[in-house]
Formats: sequence, structure tokens, C-alpha cells
Amino acid sequence: MRPSGRTPAQLRPVRITRNYTCHAEGSVLIEFGNTKVLCTASVEENVPPFLKGKGQGWVTAEYGMLPRSTNSRMKREAAQGKQSGRTQEIQRLIGRSLRAVVDMKALGERQIVLDCDVIQADGGTRTASITGAFVALTDAINGLIAAGKLAASPIREHVAAISVGVVGSTPVLDLDYVEDSDCETDMNVVMTASGRFIEIQGTAEGEPFSRAEMNALLDLADAGIRELIVLQGQALQA
Amino acid sequence: MRPSGRTPAQLRPVRITRNYTCHAEGSVLIEFGNTKVLCTASVEENVPPFLKGKGQGWVTAEYGMLPRSTNSRMKREAAQGKQSGRTQEIQRLIGRSLRAVVDMKALGERQIVLDCDVIQADGGTRTASITGAFVALTDAINGLIAAGKLAASPIREHVAAISVGVVGSTPVLDLDYVEDSDCETDMNVVMTASGRFIEIQGTAEGEPFSRAEMNALLDLADAGIRELIVLQGQALQA
Amino acid sequence: MRPSGRTPAQLRPVRITRNYTCHAEGSVLIEFGNTKVLCTASVEENVPPFLKGKGQGWVTAEYGMLPRSTNSRMKREAAQGKQSGRTQEIQRLIGRSLRAVVDMKALGERQIVLDCDVIQADGGTRTASITGAFVALTDAINGLIAAGKLAASPIREHVAAISVGVVGSTPVLDLDYVEDSDCETDMNVVMTASGRFIEIQGTAEGEPFSRAEMNALLDLADAGIRELIVLQGQALQA
Amino acid sequence: MRPSGRTPAQLRPVRITRNYTCHAEGSVLIEFGNTKVLCTASVEENVPPFLKGKGQGWVTAEYGMLPRSTNSRMKREAAQGKQSGRTQEIQRLIGRSLRAVVDMKALGERQIVLDCDVIQADGGTRTASITGAFVALTDAINGLIAAGKLAASPIREHVAAISVGVVGSTPVLDLDYVEDSDCETDMNVVMTASGRFIEIQGTAEGEPFSRAEMNALLDLADAGIRELIVLQGQALQA
Amino acid sequence: MRPSGRTPAQLRPVRITRNYTCHAEGSVLIEFGNTKVLCTASVEENVPPFLKGKGQGWVTAEYGMLPRSTNSRMKREAAQGKQSGRTQEIQRLIGRSLRAVVDMKALGERQIVLDCDVIQADGGTRTASITGAFVALTDAINGLIAAGKLAASPIREHVAAISVGVVGSTPVLDLDYVEDSDCETDMNVVMTASGRFIEIQGTAEGEPFSRAEMNALLDLADAGIRELIVLQGQALQA
Amino acid sequence: MRPSGRTPAQLRPVRITRNYTCHAEGSVLIEFGNTKVLCTASVEENVPPFLKGKGQGWVTAEYGMLPRSTNSRMKREAAQGKQSGRTQEIQRLIGRSLRAVVDMKALGERQIVLDCDVIQADGGTRTASITGAFVALTDAINGLIAAGKLAASPIREHVAAISVGVVGSTPVLDLDYVEDSDCETDMNVVMTASGRFIEIQGTAEGEPFSRAEMNALLDLADAGIRELIVLQGQALQA
Repeated sequence: MRPSGRTPAQLRPVRITRNYTCHAEGSVLIEFGNTKVLCTASVEENVPPFLKGKGQGWVTAEYGMLPRSTNSRMKREAAQGKQSGRTQEIQRLIGRSLRAVVDMKALGERQIVLDCDVIQADGGTRTASITGAFVALTDAINGLIAAGKLAASPIREHVAAISVGVVGSTPVLDLDYVEDSDCETDMNVVMTASGRFIEIQGTAEGEPFSRAEMNALLDLADAGIRELIVLQGQALQA
Repeated sequence: MRPSGRTPAQLRPVRITRNYTCHAEGSVLIEFGNTKVLCTASVEENVPPFLKGKGQGWVTAEYGMLPRSTNSRMKREAAQGKQSGRTQEIQRLIGRSLRAVVDMKALGERQIVLDCDVIQADGGTRTASITGAFVALTDAINGLIAAGKLAASPIREHVAAISVGVVGSTPVLDLDYVEDSDCETDMNVVMTASGRFIEIQGTAEGEPFSRAEMNALLDLADAGIRELIVLQGQALQA
Repeated sequence: MRPSGRTPAQLRPVRITRNYTCHAEGSVLIEFGNTKVLCTASVEENVPPFLKGKGQGWVTAEYGMLPRSTNSRMKREAAQGKQSGRTQEIQRLIGRSLRAVVDMKALGERQIVLDCDVIQADGGTRTASITGAFVALTDAINGLIAAGKLAASPIREHVAAISVGVVGSTPVLDLDYVEDSDCETDMNVVMTASGRFIEIQGTAEGEPFSRAEMNALLDLADAGIRELIVLQGQALQA
Repeated sequence: MRPSGRTPAQLRPVRITRNYTCHAEGSVLIEFGNTKVLCTASVEENVPPFLKGKGQGWVTAEYGMLPRSTNSRMKREAAQGKQSGRTQEIQRLIGRSLRAVVDMKALGERQIVLDCDVIQADGGTRTASITGAFVALTDAINGLIAAGKLAASPIREHVAAISVGVVGSTPVLDLDYVEDSDCETDMNVVMTASGRFIEIQGTAEGEPFSRAEMNALLDLADAGIRELIVLQGQALQA
Repeated sequence: MRPSGRTPAQLRPVRITRNYTCHAEGSVLIEFGNTKVLCTASVEENVPPFLKGKGQGWVTAEYGMLPRSTNSRMKREAAQGKQSGRTQEIQRLIGRSLRAVVDMKALGERQIVLDCDVIQADGGTRTASITGAFVALTDAINGLIAAGKLAASPIREHVAAISVGVVGSTPVLDLDYVEDSDCETDMNVVMTASGRFIEIQGTAEGEPFSRAEMNALLDLADAGIRELIVLQGQALQA
Repeated sequence: MRPSGRTPAQLRPVRITRNYTCHAEGSVLIEFGNTKVLCTASVEENVPPFLKGKGQGWVTAEYGMLPRSTNSRMKREAAQGKQSGRTQEIQRLIGRSLRAVVDMKALGERQIVLDCDVIQADGGTRTASITGAFVALTDAINGLIAAGKLAASPIREHVAAISVGVVGSTPVLDLDYVEDSDCETDMNVVMTASGRFIEIQGTAEGEPFSRAEMNALLDLADAGIRELIVLQGQALQA
């Protein structure tokens, strides 16, 4: 029995609220249980210098945690004068994951910036960010289509992400903070609607893990991500 | 007639939601119309170095804006590697305003950090921050009393803040972004329940302002802050 | 009786020395008693990026303290790698105060930078900076007129600034360091020759202040600034 | 046929040179073909603040590239004033990988810092770093044993790492720069002598990858790492 | 004939004003013609961490230029967020030069910080800084003796510095800015009253220089520094 | 007798290995005994902003030490977020030394960047850097000639550098770390093939030095640099 009372293969209640704030072209609050992340998509009609004049667009992401999104207060990165290694690692992951499902040529010479800011943290903030940012990105792109700036969507397919891990020898889906602090192996999986992987990051926190364990974790992740993609679709229909 | 349809002396709808997030000792979402600021209070059982062993506590504040809280995306200060002058000015103001109503000796050798993070901006974020942070601070202190760590509250009286300004020759209360961009004079007033001032910051954006105009603005602010203090009280009763 | 032997409404001896250094287009040493600030005005034939091609000029300011301008040595900001919040707050105030009396369109596409560097500090450095910087700015603009680069002065009227405060229940003018460290309320007032305000910043350091106290402080400031404007005029005639 | 003439499952020539420099407690030059990384291990008789007094040691890593280790000159991070996100990601990975095979309690209250500096880059610098750093770490620990500071080795088992990827639909082992720039999927695998994983990081650079492709890549990596562990053992015998 | 009308071996008029500001333990304005540097000495009753408990003192220096001390405005280093290489080189030179004439054991466990801030620049700011800082240091040390904190002076002998250079094939003493910009070889010499060198820094700006030229330059510097040491002595007598 | 068994006028064994790494246009490992510095020359077909359109080229240098090139581990400058004063001083010296022997007009509008990275340190890293960087620079320029981008070499003559010092009253050539830590006077001399000086930096570490001592040191340096220039020539012939 998991601390939250969930079965090993059970996601936390997931809630996706679109148009959560009013200024951004896409604005989504995604909740995985007590983890709450605000994902906004901002359309900018320019591209980074290395892409100038190449006839393609760009998708990138930034990530942050509010200082008291966590159990004990974290130092504010803006006051520290730099982003931690962890922050940079996560925002690079979010950016790569979304770029993988967008046709950059079809997007045209514009950039979409995804800001993922953690309002409340209880494990799984990076996977919630990817899953929510996809919805915000879709809203921003639909806005471009509605405004006649794009003829068709450059999004190839849905993408979502989930964490899986081995806790007390049992492979479980969607770890909350208590499980995450305690797990032997932690894996973040980013997958598309077609069941193919964009990113797999598995880390042994304590004991190294076997190939069999990895396979069990990937089975869990596969099912979890399929569920999330259904939820994304429902939110986008609403 | 104001762009929002309000009368000159009318506040925007104010909403104060306590316990907005689950980790902080005080957590308040304050809304002044479309301006939404999350104010958390974190209790730390230590004091900054300059107060070590002096038998008193400290209250301080940090302020930030989510990159897309604004109409066009602002650069993330953590990525820029420093806080802007405006950010530092605002967080220093919030800290001073709250310290002015707390008896630091009675607080004991501990620190309370107020984090004011703007989720959505439409003018008046610094005054909303002060008004909301007071409620979060009160919740945190009540928690210390409930835990037996304090015998009585070191808070002397309520404090709240509002902006006033001269827009098109008319003095108005609680400027939203459209009015703020357009006003001749902008004044932020921080006042206590006893009707005394903690801070007055008046700035001529265009034409300098006369003493008569300043008096009219202070009259408006006085009434507005009394309303806010009533709302704080109601929120704390709820 | 004040520590310096002055009456409540008495300024410290004020001395304004023009052409204090030889390179700048305007160079003024201003002394308020023991407070000494070197204010230089530098004309640059370009404008900041956000004003390019808008047919108007810009006036901005930077502020610094020499490490041993103060009683105990302060850390050098250049060595610390950043300007403090206080420094940024002050230099933003100086810039705003001077911009308020200059017609930016009439100035043309050029920038004037005021550098206010405190050689010796004894309270009131920001108000001395504004008062001295105005004289340096005037010299720089007169130089542009003499060189045929401007037909008429874009300066609308004089501006000067003074601090006032409540010390031991008495409102006093032009606080020195001893009074400043000890005051209940501290107010900086920036006013023009026509008696209108550009900036009022009042802060309760200890007890909040009443409206009556604020009015008494503004009366003192009004008289003090009128005196300073006369002294600016005399210095510019010399 | 691969650009280098290798078969899909073939490593580049690997060379491990111990005692490459004279000051460090462990100093290894590792070469994977044209990729050359200097890995030094420094023993420090203290631990980071968060471990003070906890009766355990720490292993950490830093990574850097010489500016002209690459085909076109990269900016020097020390001159830029910060380490890139990529650098931080890699050094965090190296640290985690080595910590996973060391018993921190058995190491005692001391820290071993692994510096991995790329002298020449041709793909696979992070996996070469992990593989070489393990040898440097072993030398440093053997030095502690020889000096009587440790009774037995706290190293549990060997660890090594290799990259695998899908290039032109073919899964290949140990990608060089040409292959890396061109691959559809890139995976870094960190594995122990017992055949268990410490870290798997798979990224789709172009097309997402299927589970079957992932399995093929893991098979390649498994064989490659076994070879590397043999080579580590031979180098340590020499 | 030199641009200033001086003979090759002639110093500019040198003026040394003690007690230029009121807070520092030593405060000297030194002028070499139009070059004006404020040198303050601050006594701190502690030493840097690397000297804690070693029974000796420390002397160090910091250097800065006011933004408009120069002909065209230089960017403020505090605003840039770092000190330039030139600044660091100069302040290291000043510190080394003064440490060389002070007996650190006799100074006791305290630190004297020399701040050399250039008010107006016309060449030779680093040599003026060393020459003036020695006087400020002496005043600070005499203050420690007067206060009974030191029994005798730890200063072994006077130190002063001057620049020499080859301008249009002629070796000249004490270059001003016009000469400095135009010289083939530039040499800064730091020498003690006993005629021995503490530092010689000779740089070919255009053509390399011969040993004969170097000897001619050292002869000039030797005479110039003797003059400066006489002037230091007279200032300290005054 | 010197600690290394050398005579006072004896260089350490010097080894110059060209083409040490494969990417740079010039790549030289230079060894002065145990001191090993990798010097790479990178040709960039652009110039720094201050030279744009002036029809001339530029030569500049950067310097770094690997963290464990030294006896005890130094902090990594990239992780510290800045280069030390010492680093900046050395890289400025290297750049000046090489610029002095290159005809910038003849080089054309391109820049050559010399990176000098210390792999192992045992005293004399800056003089080894200059001596080795000259060889790397020559290789890079010969590459430009071979590629038809330059008709003739813009290099006027060889340059090399050596340290000399007074150790235990004896003037000695090419100090290693043990001597360097212990010397009374330390001098770095940069000289050309024609026997003229580009830079002389002499510093009294303990006792000031006399003119006679300086002359003895320059005699030693002169002979040592002639030897180094012969070795450079032999390496370039090889």
C-alpha cells in the first residue's frame, strides 16, 4: 500500500485548467495531486540569433519554483543571481520534449516560450510541466491559426510525461514527494501519443537497477502516459 | 468615467483567499481585480547575522513577477542573473511596511520571510502584496501562538496599502494598468488601522503635482485603506 | 536644540562649486555641511535602445559612495559585483527627478548621464545629489547651447530636494547622520521652483506618522527647497 | 559502414593512462579515439556543510572543456562568468554515477572531487569522463589505504559509461562527433560490473524512438560497458 | 619640448593634501598636475581568513575611477558587475608596493585597507595612488601609535612611484595622458627611500626597447622618486 | 646548489610538442620541467568591435589553470563565476607580448586567440605560456599562408619569456615552484630575438632589490631567452 493509498499503477488525480491567467497566449494550471504548476505559452514574432533567416521557428522553456512551493523555503534563484543546475536541467528537458513534437519549419520564424512555474510541489514537477506545457502550447498555436497566422498546426502528436520508480522493491507510477525521497530508482519518461519515447531518464538513487526493473517501470509509464494524453485531449475539447 | 467603469473613489473587487498553498505557515492569494499575488509567510527559527544574539526577531520580504504575469513576456530575473532595481525597491518597501507593525522583541529570535509572487498583473502589485502579506504574516504568527512558541501576538495593528493617482486631472483610487500607464501622478500609500502612515511615495510621472492634489490623493487613500483593513479582518475571521 | 546647534528649520551651510573637475560637460561639488557629493553631467550623442528613432532625448543617473565616505568602511560595490538595492533606489530617484523638469523632445536625440559620487557622507546624500546634479545638468545644457547644438534650453524649471524628519517629536529640516539614525520619520521631498512636487517619499522608521506631522514636514521642506533653489541660481550666476 | 570504418558494436580504441599528472591523488588520461579527457581525483579532508558531523563522506565532480578542445573555439566559461546548463548537467551526472558505487559511510568524513577536463573532443566526453574518473577515484582511494587512512576500499564495484545511438536507422555503439551530430536517438548508459544500471538517459534528437530500438541500444551498451570495465581492470593492474 | 612645456626630467606640480575627508584614519588627496586621486586608509581590527591567528597584520588596496574622471565617460564598474582586468592589476600593484615597506608582525593582527579613487585622470593614476597611499597609511599608523595601540611604527621606509617612458625617442619622466597615449615604451617604477626597487613594470607599447633605453628610464625614475619622497616627508611634517 | 640540482644559469629541460591536439590551427604543449602548458591558436575571421573596419587584425590571449594542476586543488574559476585578478593579469601579459611582434595591418581583419591552459604547474606558467603560444601562433599563421589567405608572415621576430629571481641571495634562471615560493625577488622578462625587451616585471617579494641585482637578473634572462628562441626555431623546423 502506497502512502497516498494509491495502487502501484494509479496516477494521482490530474486536473488541467486552461486560461488560468489572462495575458499569455496559452495558460494552463496542471495539478498532479498536490503538485501544481502554472504553464504559460508566449508567442514571440522572432527567433533566437542562431536561427535568424533559416526559415524555421523555435520552442523553448524556462522553469522555476516559487520559494515556498516546497516544504521548507528554498532560496529565490533571482536573489541568488543564478539558476541551479537542477533548474537548468529541467528546463532543457521541457524544451527538448516539446520541440520533438513540433515541425519547426511549419511553425514559421517565430518562437514559443513555455514558462513552467511551480506554485506547489509534491513530487513530479518536471513531468507535470511537460504535460501541462503541451496543452498551453496547443492553445497558443490554435490562437495563431485562429488569427490566420498559421494555416495548419505544426504539432505532430501529443506528448506527455510521468515519473515512475522503485519504492520498497515495488515499481510504482507517479511518485509523490514522500515516495520520491525514499525510492531506490527514479525514472522520468516522456512519450508521444504513438507510444514512442522522446526521453527516458532513469537514475539509481540507492541500489543500481536491473533491466527487468527497468522494463517493469517502462510498462507502468506507458500506461500512465496514455491516460495523461487522454486527459490532455479532454481538456482541449472542453 | 474610468476605463473600468468605476467611480474615482471605488476599489476594484478585492478577494483574499487564505491557505492557498499547503506548505507555508501563511499562504494568501490576494486579488485586486485582475491583479493576483500569492503571498506566503515562512517562519525560520534563526535571524540574519546582524541580529544574532540581540534578542529580537526580523521580518523581511522578497518580490517577483512570473514572466508572463504581464501583457508581454518579461525576462525571468533568475535567468538574467539579477533582480531589477524596481524589484529590489518593491521588496524593500514590503519589508519595511510589515516591520513597522511588528514588535521585533516580542517576536523573539526568529525570522518571518514574506514571498510576494505576482501570478497576474494589472497595476497595483506592490500595494496588493503589502495588503496580502499582512494576512499571511498574521496566519504565521497565529500558528506560532497555537504551537505555544509565542504567548501573545507581536502584531501591533493592521497595515494595508493602496495606490492613488491623478488621471486626466481627476484623483482616483486603486489604479489598474491602463490608468497607471496614463496617469500624471502616482502615489502609493501604506497606512495602519489607526490611520497613521508608514510610507507615502508620490511620484510625478508627467506634470509635477500641487499640495492640493496631494491632499486629495491622501483623502482617497485613507478611505481605501480603511476598506482594505475591514476586508483583511473579515478574511481572518473566516 | 539640534546636535549641530541648528534651529529646526535651518539648513546646514550649503556650498556649490562648479567646474570641480575638468573633463565633464558639467561638474559640481555640492556640500550640505559635511556631506560632499561630486555630480558630473556627461553628454552622449546617442540614446538608450528603447528610444532609438523616437526623436527625443534621455536623462539618467548613477549613484555611488566611495568606500570610506562613511564612518566605517563600506564594501566597494564594484568588488562585490553588484549595486545594492539602496544604490539602485537612489539612482532611479535622481534620474526621475531630473527628467521631470526637462523637455525630452526639445533635448533632441542625445542622453545626459548624471554621476553622483559621494566623497564624504553625513546624511542627506540623495537630496544633495539631486540638488547638485541639477546644476551640473544646467551647465551641460548651456554648453550645448553655446556650441550651437541646441537653440534653447529644454529645462522647464529648477528642481531641488531636501530631507525632513521627526526627531524626538520635533519636525526638523535637513537631517545630518546623527539625526537620521535617530529619527522616527524620514521624508525626502523633491520640488520645483513653482512649488510643485516631483517626489515625496515619507517613511516611518519607528512610530507611524500622522497627517498633521506630514503637513508640518512638508511646510519645512517647502521653505528649505526654496532656499536651495535660490542658492542654485546664485551658483549658476557666478 | 560507419564513417570511422567501425562495425556497429565496435568501441573506438580506448586508452587509459594513469598518473598522467603529478599532483593529484588520482590522475588519468582517458582516450576514446580522438576524445581525450583528463580526470583527476583530489582528496580533501572535509565534507560539504550539509554533511558536517554526519559520519559519512562525499564524492562530487566538476567538468570543463578547454576552449579549443572542439572544432570551432568555444567561449571560456570562466570568462563568461558562468557554467552552461550542459556543463552543469554533465558534472551532476558524473558525480551521481560515482557516488552510486561508493559506500559513503565507509569513506569516512572526507570528500573526493573528480575534475574531468576535456583536452580534445570528438563525441562521448561525458561517458569517457565517468569511465576515466572511476579509475582516478580508485587510485585516490588506494592511496588512502596505503597511507593507513582507510582499512578497506569503500568502492562496491566498477562503473563505466558509454553512448549508443540510432544513426541512419542502425543502432551503433560509442558515437563519435560526426555520428552524434547526425543521429536520431542518443542514449548515455551508466552501468556497473554486476550489469545493473545507474543511469540511462535516452533522447530523441529527431524522430521519437520505439521500445524495440531502446532494447537494441541497451544490448549494445551492455556489451560495450563490459569491455570498458575489463579495460579499467587492466589499467589498474598495470 | 614636451606638450606640457616640461623638461624631460621634470615632474608635474605635485600637491599632497592630508585630512582631505573626515572619516578615514588616513585621507590624502594627491595631485600630479591634473591627475587627482583620493587615498584613504581604513584600519580594521581583524585580518583576512588566511591570516587568522598567525600573529601578523595585512595591508591591502582597492582602486577605482569615477566614471567621468576621464575624458569620455567610462562605464561604472559597480553597474557592470565586475572590476576590469586593468583595475585588478592596479590594485594588486598598490597593495604589494605598500606591504613591502611594512613589518607585518609589528603591525599586529589588524588590517589596513587603502582605497585609491581617481577623481580626475590625466595619466599616472597608479603611481600617484601608491605615492599618496603611503602618506595615508602613515597617518593611519601614527593614529594607532597615538591611541596606544602600537608602540612603534611598523613602517620600514618611505615608498613612492613614478611612470617614465620613451616618447618620440626621448626618455621622459611622469607622463601625462597625451604622452602616455603616444609613447613607445611605458615603465612604472616603485622605489623605496633607500633607492631599492619594489616593482618595475616596463612595457613596449610600440617598438621593443633596448637595455640602454631601460637604463635611461631607470635613471629618470630614480631621480623623480627621490623628489616625491622629499615631498611626502614635507607633507607629513606639515 | 639549487633544489633541482641545476646551476644558477641553467634552464629546466624544455620540450615543445607541436600539433598536440587536432582541432586548433596551432596546438603546442610546452614543458619547462614539470610545468606543462597547452597553448592553442584559433583563427577567427572577424575582429573585436573596437577594430571593426579599421583594416587591421588582433591577437589576444586567455589563460587558465586546471583545478588540480597545482599541489592542492584550486577552485575552478568557471564555477566561481569569475576569473581571478592573477588570471586576468597573466592573460593580458600574454596578449601584449604576442601583439608586440605581429604587424596588425599585415595580419588583415582577423583575430587569433591564444588559449594557454596549464595542465601541470611547477612555477613559470606565464613565461612558458608566452614561449609556447609564440609557436602555436606561428603554426596558425603558416596555415593562413598555406591556404593562400596571407601572402607573407606578419610576424616580425620571435618572442620568448623566462622568469629570473634572487633566491637565498643568488640570482637564478627559470625558477620552479619551490624556488618561487622562497625567492626575495621575482622577475618575468619578455624579450625578442633581436635582444630587445617587450616586458619586464620585477617584484620584490621580501626585501627590495638593488639596481645591481636587477642587472644580474637581466643578464641571466637574456641568455635564457636566447636559448628558448633557439628551441622555438628547432621545434618549428621539425
